[in-house]
Amino acid sequence: MRALTLITILLVHKYPSECNSDYKTKRAQILNDEDKLTLGGHINLTQQETEVNNCLMKHKNNELDYAFEHPEYFNFSYHFFKYKDGIRNSKVYKIIKDVPKGAALHLHDVGLLGPDYLLNITYMDGLYFCFDNNKVLLKFSNKVPDTNCNWKLMRDVRRMSNNVRKFDAELRKHFTMVVDDPAHDYPCIKNTWAAFINYFNTIFPMVTYRPVWERYFYDVLKRFREDNILYVEVRTILPPLYELDGTTYDPVVTAKAYKKIANRFVKDHPDFIGAKVIYAPARNVDTNALALYLQIAKRVKAEVLDFFAGFDLVGQEDLGKPLLDFVPQLTAAAGELTYYFHAGETDWYGTSTDENLVDAILLGAKRIGHAYALPKHPLLIEEVLKRDIGLEVNVISNAVLSLVQDVRNHPLASFFAHGLPVVISSDDPGAWEADPLSDDFYVAFMGVASKTADLRLLKQLALNSLKYSALEGDAKTKAFEKFNVKWNDFVYNFQCNSYN
Amino acid sequence: MRALTLITILLVHKYPSECNSDYKTKRAQILNDEDKLTLGGHINLTQQETEVNNCLMKHKNNELDYAFEHPEYFNFSYHFFKYKDGIRNSKVYKIIKDVPKGAALHLHDVGLLGPDYLLNITYMDGLYFCFDNNKVLLKFSNKVPDTNCNWKLMRDVRRMSNNVRKFDAELRKHFTMVVDDPAHDYPCIKNTWAAFINYFNTIFPMVTYRPVWERYFYDVLKRFREDNILYVEVRTILPPLYELDGTTYDPVVTAKAYKKIANRFVKDHPDFIGAKVIYAPARNVDTNALALYLQIAKRVKAEVLDFFAGFDLVGQEDLGKPLLDFVPQLTAAAGELTYYFHAGETDWYGTSTDENLVDAILLGAKRIGHAYALPKHPLLIEEVLKRDIGLEVNVISNAVLSLVQDVRNHPLASFFAHGLPVVISSDDPGAWEADPLSDDFYVAFMGVASKTADLRLLKQLALNSLKYSALEGDAKTKAFEKFNVKWNDFVYNFQCNSYN
Repeated sequence: MRALTLITILLVHKYPSECNSDYKTKRAQILNDEDKLTLGGHINLTQQETEVNNCLMKHKNNELDYAFEHPEYFNFSYHFFKYKDGIRNSKVYKIIKDVPKGAALHLHDVGLLGPDYLLNITYMDGLYFCFDNNKVLLKFSNKVPDTNCNWKLMRDVRRMSNNVRKFDAELRKHFTMVVDDPAHDYPCIKNTWAAFINYFNTIFPMVTYRPVWERYFYDVLKRFREDNILYVEVRTILPPLYELDGTTYDPVVTAKAYKKIANRFVKDHPDFIGAKVIYAPARNVDTNALALYLQIAKRVKAEVLDFFAGFDLVGQEDLGKPLLDFVPQLTAAAGELTYYFHAGETDWYGTSTDENLVDAILLGAKRIGHAYALPKHPLLIEEVLKRDIGLEVNVISNAVLSLVQDVRNHPLASFFAHGLPVVISSDDPGAWEADPLSDDFYVAFMGVASKTADLRLLKQLALNSLKYSALEGDAKTKAFEKFNVKWNDFVYNFQCNSYN
Repeated sequence: MRALTLITILLVHKYPSECNSDYKTKRAQILNDEDKLTLGGHINLTQQETEVNNCLMKHKNNELDYAFEHPEYFNFSYHFFKYKDGIRNSKVYKIIKDVPKGAALHLHDVGLLGPDYLLNITYMDGLYFCFDNNKVLLKFSNKVPDTNCNWKLMRDVRRMSNNVRKFDAELRKHFTMVVDDPAHDYPCIKNTWAAFINYFNTIFPMVTYRPVWERYFYDVLKRFREDNILYVEVRTILPPLYELDGTTYDPVVTAKAYKKIANRFVKDHPDFIGAKVIYAPARNVDTNALALYLQIAKRVKAEVLDFFAGFDLVGQEDLGKPLLDFVPQLTAAAGELTYYFHAGETDWYGTSTDENLVDAILLGAKRIGHAYALPKHPLLIEEVLKRDIGLEVNVISNAVLSLVQDVRNHPLASFFAHGLPVVISSDDPGAWEADPLSDDFYVAFMGVASKTADLRLLKQLALNSLKYSALEGDAKTKAFEKFNVKWNDFVYNFQCNSYN
């Protein structure tokens, strides 16, 4: 055996070291060149930023080295509901929470605040309640609603429940998609979307009560600001708001209410940049309905010009109409409306849903929602780069809504690698009890991005969120100024030991 | 409402049709150009091939249209074990079964035949059996093995079991990874690989008994030929074969036994092209052990020159040594050995396992095993294309071994889209009770490829399997000739109604 070892040593050492150093140079060059191609890879960090980065990467490497050695504890391979509470223990998470993250650009208004917030609303006066096929119906009114259901005042039902805590816990389940055993409750995308739609159906009649709506949106902005977000663009179906006496309003009124609240919030919080809305009605409609939508969009735009970002269509894409069905109408309106289409939010390749990506691009979308199917389209990737179309990626949403299980398989990894124009958003964080944006940043940074991805990625994502926003001209310049103030504050006041 | 409809009709019809036809042309151009980029996209089908294709695509569209409408039945989103038996009902599967598929280039010798085959071996004379920590130990011997375990002759144990059927059913479970509830039994990659390694540990001492080995490999070739495969390249650790009296042999003897059997099989089946071996010992070793491996590789190559394809390292990549550790030795041996490295068989991005892709390429690998992490490496993708490195993709293996759940998220989809040099193989189909290759072709064609991918893809995959094989010169030319005979037979004798 000793002779053998000697031979081996001779074998190992007979290669000229020059050859090895050539190899190492080439290898380092490739890794370095690939790093430069990644999103944020061209950013040079300042001295202070480097110190922040060292701290961030120390914790990132610790956490991922442990996960690499102990895959049984690496929870990104599991369902988000299984590891979401564990995120709170991560030091990387705590840092990300404090990082100024710029803007959140892909949000659906009624999915933004969680079940505890919604439960609080049920304590307001005038809320009626009934059960219908295991579904909870809710409605504010000054008299018993006249639909065929056993309506009672929530106040009375709760009082008569004997156990308010248990009653509230049961009620809360109707305000969230989170369950203990997602594999059991959501075996397939059909079940997940049914629960998701049901969630919206339950809360819509509650939050569209005008006084709730105004408070709700103000609180949305508050929560997002607390998560170090400076600006939001919110997709909305512009639901008709209503009063206790049943009066309902035009969508323009909803838009105006939105604008009024956003202005008030910015006045109360001058460091906040503001908000805009994207009118995004349901996609599963015919051309007549679309024509109506486009009319509403134009009316709303005329009324709240600066506040109106553009137009989109929403709903489970596989079940909705493909954009192709609406091309003549959408082409005609393209001069007046900016498009932010959902497209390619699907696992299907070569289907009408997948091809929505072609139409989103040809219709001139400024950004694309999800673009999950994009890696399957080399020429569309080129178009995205050429036209500089922002890709609104929502990793947790895609995981919860049954597109991907292990987020390490999310296409965002290749978007990062190829330096595509990505923004990270959170879609409906209230529906799955996630942070306004920090959880999505965390999962993208730790679960999807390269182990070597660092503060440059986080900074680029924040910068992208302003760059690809609907802000223009002076407003955009000012937004970058406000962001820079926040960023510099964060960097200059950063203390690594406060995360120990 | 009638007035509204009229307005809508006017709105819809006011756009000049010329504009729409421009749009449609552009759209069709993009889809057409992307189709040309896909693997097989440049193939022009003959008249007869087009007829086959029409039949194939009629069934493919029927099956996928149904799945698109009824995702609850679309089983590719589930675990392979949940839908594998259902595949047998597919008409597309039945056609694929008959398609000449060329070669299988990524196979591990001891994982090729299923549990029923292995169970039959346990009826041979001289097999000893014992239980140790819930693991089955098996060994052929002419006397009781002298390790610390309660060894008994299998024949006696089976006879004393009272219920042979039940005994065999229990025993069979040790010869397969298939379980009823994979989510329960394999919650994480660690459990999956533990079961996988255990499977090999159980069957190795049984199949390395020389008489079994010779029969086993002959039967492997038989099964693959029956699945319309003409040639295989088999990775092997060249285990020492043994006799009843305990005599064990040198790895060279194993290689020679292999070659002898392959030659006999080709003599018995002149339409079959043949087999080669890739020497692929365990990767989780130090440089001393690697030096020994390389010596064995060179010795074996000298003894069975034509039969020896090259060198690789195997085992769970995340737990093994990175190729980087062996660069000096592997560089030095590169002139004598052709490399077929496993690399990037991981969900991790930016780790040593992921970076194995860099080293596999820089070390001059002729093909790469799995290359699962490749989409995260834009420059490596360019190198793969420039160096024309074959990518050995094993979709079912990656699904079973916990890299991906819904195969529609498998990176192969983007490999197809970008026309990368892919070959489809099956890794260890016996371990998960899959067909030699047809199941992998089926899952790749129906679950991963575009809905529009057709016979051109299947033909290109078959052609690639010969193109990227270790065959060279005349042998390669003859292989293509044999394949063409099979292909033309298939096309000319194809009858769509035989699949109804």
